[in-house]
Amino acid sequence: MKLAVIGMGLMGGSAALAMRQAGVVDSVVACDLNPDEIQTSIELGIADEGTQDVLESVLGADVVMVATPVMTMEAIFRQAAPGLGDGAVITDVGSVRGAVQESASRALGKKFCRYAPCHPIAGGEKPGVRYANPGMFRGKNVISTSGLWADRDAVERMEGLWKACGANIIRMTAERHDEVFATMSHLPHVLSFAFVKMVTESRNPDELLRMGGTGFLDFSRIAASSPVMWRDICLTNREAISRGLRRYRRELERFQKDIDEGNADRLVAEFARAAQARRGLGPGPKGKK
Amino acid sequence: MKLAVIGMGLMGGSAALAMRQAGVVDSVVACDLNPDEIQTSIELGIADEGTQDVLESVLGADVVMVATPVMTMEAIFRQAAPGLGDGAVITDVGSVRGAVQESASRALGKKFCRYAPCHPIAGGEKPGVRYANPGMFRGKNVISTSGLWADRDAVERMEGLWKACGANIIRMTAERHDEVFATMSHLPHVLSFAFVKMVTESRNPDELLRMGGTGFLDFSRIAASSPVMWRDICLTNREAISRGLRRYRRELERFQKDIDEGNADRLVAEFARAAQARRGLGPGPKGKK
Repeated sequence: MKLAVIGMGLMGGSAALAMRQAGVVDSVVACDLNPDEIQTSIELGIADEGTQDVLESVLGADVVMVATPVMTMEAIFRQAAPGLGDGAVITDVGSVRGAVQESASRALGKKFCRYAPCHPIAGGEKPGVRYANPGMFRGKNVISTSGLWADRDAVERMEGLWKACGANIIRMTAERHDEVFATMSHLPHVLSFAFVKMVTESRNPDELLRMGGTGFLDFSRIAASSPVMWRDICLTNREAISRGLRRYRRELERFQKDIDEGNADRLVAEFARAAQARRGLGPGPKGKK
Repeated sequence: MKLAVIGMGLMGGSAALAMRQAGVVDSVVACDLNPDEIQTSIELGIADEGTQDVLESVLGADVVMVATPVMTMEAIFRQAAPGLGDGAVITDVGSVRGAVQESASRALGKKFCRYAPCHPIAGGEKPGVRYANPGMFRGKNVISTSGLWADRDAVERMEGLWKACGANIIRMTAERHDEVFATMSHLPHVLSFAFVKMVTESRNPDELLRMGGTGFLDFSRIAASSPVMWRDICLTNREAISRGLRRYRRELERFQKDIDEGNADRLVAEFARAAQARRGLGPGPKGKK
């Protein structure tokens, strides 16, 4: 089975490596605008060959995975479409589904029935294929958001590849996906970026940053993520993120009031509500102790 | 050297264990309102004996460490003062300095010169002495905020104990401490609590929480922290936290505008500013890869 990865970064590289190691992919073509990423992926044994040309990369591929910032995907789908074999599957790993799936329907033409999008809820803040980690998907959710347009065998093949990486498949509509991840992923990223940006605009940002403990470091880890990737997510899932941000700002207004007025009972009750919910989830995959 | 720990939880237990293992403390008295915490600390070899009575716990102690929520400290200082030996040192590990140091000056009377506060920038969201971790302070900062009131030997003894645990001592005024940690610790906790509380009030909180990936889990880990401890911090460092929260809310207002208006260039520039600053710090102590 031949896989073409368009956008050979952390996510594309980790997926290719995981699928190779699981024995479900035999050869990998790397396509990237940056020849260094192609070179690195070949040196690391992730890819066998590479090209900067999208159309060339998909020729003869059984599965084409697009792993670039979401706003670039429509152009990539358009370039890839003429080269897709009839039995090939095309997928993407983008964090936004609605806008990307609409762009796929516009750009893929009659190949749209071979489009089987799957969003892995995994990743990392370090950019580049050199950080590729084939264990990244083990025990993680992969959200499959295919609709009625898709050939069943394309969806099942794509889901099977992710299962082979150790992931759990969860099916969801694109609309529900974009609501859920606006809250559970997109919003925390915006909040963390905004917080670190604010600190950099303090009078002594270097002193402040040096003083951050584990709480700050965990809270802000995602603020090291790719700015372009997150700009694209904010613009393509704009309505849902905007609603969440507005709701969170109202939440903070209430906390401000409780702190300013010294509402001890309300503060402890609200903190307790959060603590109880969060404790139920455990410390997280990197959890201490 | 005999150490009395008043408030035998995660922090007090970790400190006692670290100091024992470093060979700078020979015996430990545990004082806690909760007899289970005393019992656990004895079973774990952290303490040798215990009592629920503050005055009793400090008799014969060379160092008294108060590790309770900050608003309880004034009463504890008052109960402890008559039992403190002339050469003994009293300290606390609270996250707020100004209000606590004022309460110590009121409550300790002529023993105030033996008060040497040190705040370790370390901890964890799991409550209770059973999670005590003697390695918690290795390579971490401990902020020493003693002022002119303090006997030099008391300050140096206290700082020496923390150094023996592997910590770096940083001296700072109480005022500066409370400004720095309002931004770098207190505010992220409030933001994380507020976020998780908001999620619990969604239509499908359980589904949402199950869908959170590593980004959400890291961002929200501190929302599992002790509600009472954080209520006390919010109320005793109220002004600085309130200023920070107001500033952050203005920041979010600008991000809301950028997202709503689709200001791609501003968004990417602001994310990049944050990402650059955050990448300089590394992934954090539990960092992946």
